[in-house]
Amino acid sequence: MRQAGRYMPEYRALRERHGILDIIGAPELAAEVTLQPIRAFGFDAAIIFADILPPLVGMGLDLAFSDGEGPRISNRIMSPRDVDRLGTPPAEETMPHTLAAIRIVARELEASGTPLIGFAGAPFTLACYAVEGGTSKSFAKAKALMFGEPAAWKRLMTKLVTVQADYLAAQARAGAQALQVFDSWAGIALSLTDYRRFALPYTTMLLERLKDVGVPVINFSMGTSCYIDEVARAGGDVIGVDWRRPLDEAWKAIGYERAIQGNLDPAVLLAPWRELRYQIDDVLDRAGGRPGHIFNLGHGVLPETPVDNVRRLVDFVHERTLIPR
Amino acid sequence: MRQAGRYMPEYRALRERHGILDIIGAPELAAEVTLQPIRAFGFDAAIIFADILPPLVGMGLDLAFSDGEGPRISNRIMSPRDVDRLGTPPAEETMPHTLAAIRIVARELEASGTPLIGFAGAPFTLACYAVEGGTSKSFAKAKALMFGEPAAWKRLMTKLVTVQADYLAAQARAGAQALQVFDSWAGIALSLTDYRRFALPYTTMLLERLKDVGVPVINFSMGTSCYIDEVARAGGDVIGVDWRRPLDEAWKAIGYERAIQGNLDPAVLLAPWRELRYQIDDVLDRAGGRPGHIFNLGHGVLPETPVDNVRRLVDFVHERTLIPR
Repeated sequence: MRQAGRYMPEYRALRERHGILDIIGAPELAAEVTLQPIRAFGFDAAIIFADILPPLVGMGLDLAFSDGEGPRISNRIMSPRDVDRLGTPPAEETMPHTLAAIRIVARELEASGTPLIGFAGAPFTLACYAVEGGTSKSFAKAKALMFGEPAAWKRLMTKLVTVQADYLAAQARAGAQALQVFDSWAGIALSLTDYRRFALPYTTMLLERLKDVGVPVINFSMGTSCYIDEVARAGGDVIGVDWRRPLDEAWKAIGYERAIQGNLDPAVLLAPWRELRYQIDDVLDRAGGRPGHIFNLGHGVLPETPVDNVRRLVDFVHERTLIPR
Repeated sequence: MRQAGRYMPEYRALRERHGILDIIGAPELAAEVTLQPIRAFGFDAAIIFADILPPLVGMGLDLAFSDGEGPRISNRIMSPRDVDRLGTPPAEETMPHTLAAIRIVARELEASGTPLIGFAGAPFTLACYAVEGGTSKSFAKAKALMFGEPAAWKRLMTKLVTVQADYLAAQARAGAQALQVFDSWAGIALSLTDYRRFALPYTTMLLERLKDVGVPVINFSMGTSCYIDEVARAGGDVIGVDWRRPLDEAWKAIGYERAIQGNLDPAVLLAPWRELRYQIDDVLDRAGGRPGHIFNLGHGVLPETPVDNVRRLVDFVHERTLIPR
């Protein structure tokens, strides 16, 4: 999950001078922000500071971030013709800044042995942003295209698979030692039937194409815990789960032969230590010491999070799982 | 589910002259808006035009709606002391406008035999609004209070149960022939464990208090389909389900001896007839003609919905279920 962010004073200081897309676009800055939480907390892995949306820019969409309002795409997909206008240029051309940041961080982390994770958005989540032009509560525009123009939807999703498979493979070549596919919206937006028709086939296709990249792939999605067994069948060496379903139930549904990542509610980091410790213990107890559990939050760190709670969480998980520091 | 709204030209015309709280506050207007969709589409039941938040005003919170931004509470709950400041006055004093609107609509509908549904928010959802001061994506403030001040959380939820039980009972006395409890956020926000600790006990308490009101109660919640059996154990004559889990699976989990309401994705009303019909058929096929299925959307009608699709849906469901008009 995203580790750097507004809860860290070092990050806030940098953000006073630079916009989020400026940081992502400047490899030295993105590398610095990636390393801030590693230095501060000693996480077992770093995740490259980036965003899921910039690959859409390479496809021909205009992206801007305004503080408080989130992302805005001024020329969103409104018709099948707009889908046909989208390009699928290689990531080496369109995402050189993030690939360069990965090279810098991988080099910096080499001595310590801390691995670096690359990531990209799942096709459904990116399609939602491309069609809605920003975040949405109802996904009305995306679903109208999906239901109304299924052939165009298929072309859009297939283009996104092409772009994302190439981008993730390029991240591995640049030095990312694991890759995470992020599906923020499919489980929140879709009925199970429509998930199977309009989202899952494309995540499956994407994960299929990543089988030969030579690094483990984490398949993470929000709001899908009810049918996490199906999500798992789409592929991925590790299944990332949000906090909605207890870890043991989710893992049982996935199958213990597969690794699992999760699943503390990020908001528990706003709680007093008594409650935070109770919930960390609960996740670890449910993992039961089985090999293949990666302790993690079920989503990114919230901006309101006290820095001390993150430090205490990392130290406590290290202690309980007996990983030597 | 809310039937009136921006997708209807009659409603838009009224909203040009009146704010949403003005309509809710004027019994004649609220009654008129409640009846608009009944006249236009011939639904089998009406639902009173109201909102889940006004009961918070009676408790001492300031509520305003701004177009596009949603609700805002200027004096949100920030501490246990703020919880203690909340009052629990009776609905006859604080919600006379909605109770009066119910009396008008019940009288208007008497001749046709169309029943009227009253509704209110579930304690968790109202607590989220009261603490966040509006809508939220992370529910960080509400969860911080819930985890950090569990005793204050319990007092807040207990007060909400008192107010909502009284409000719903008053709606039944005013002429509502069924009552719906609406939980928009618990299933979206909480882990199953925290749902059991911080939300479910209070919904159970509320439904318990409604057992003697003499009208059926619909227990509706969003994002809970994965553990809908637990939701059902909290009570309610009818369990309302969103669109995320297929109706037959949800009903099986609930138990066929209980009635079920749902579960078409409201966004399917934006689709061409071919797709819309396919999905209506799917819901009805999964209901399998069993007694106790109330065909409905899984949430309110979206503003983008074409009026003709609503009409066609109602006519088609009536035809397929052989209800004489």
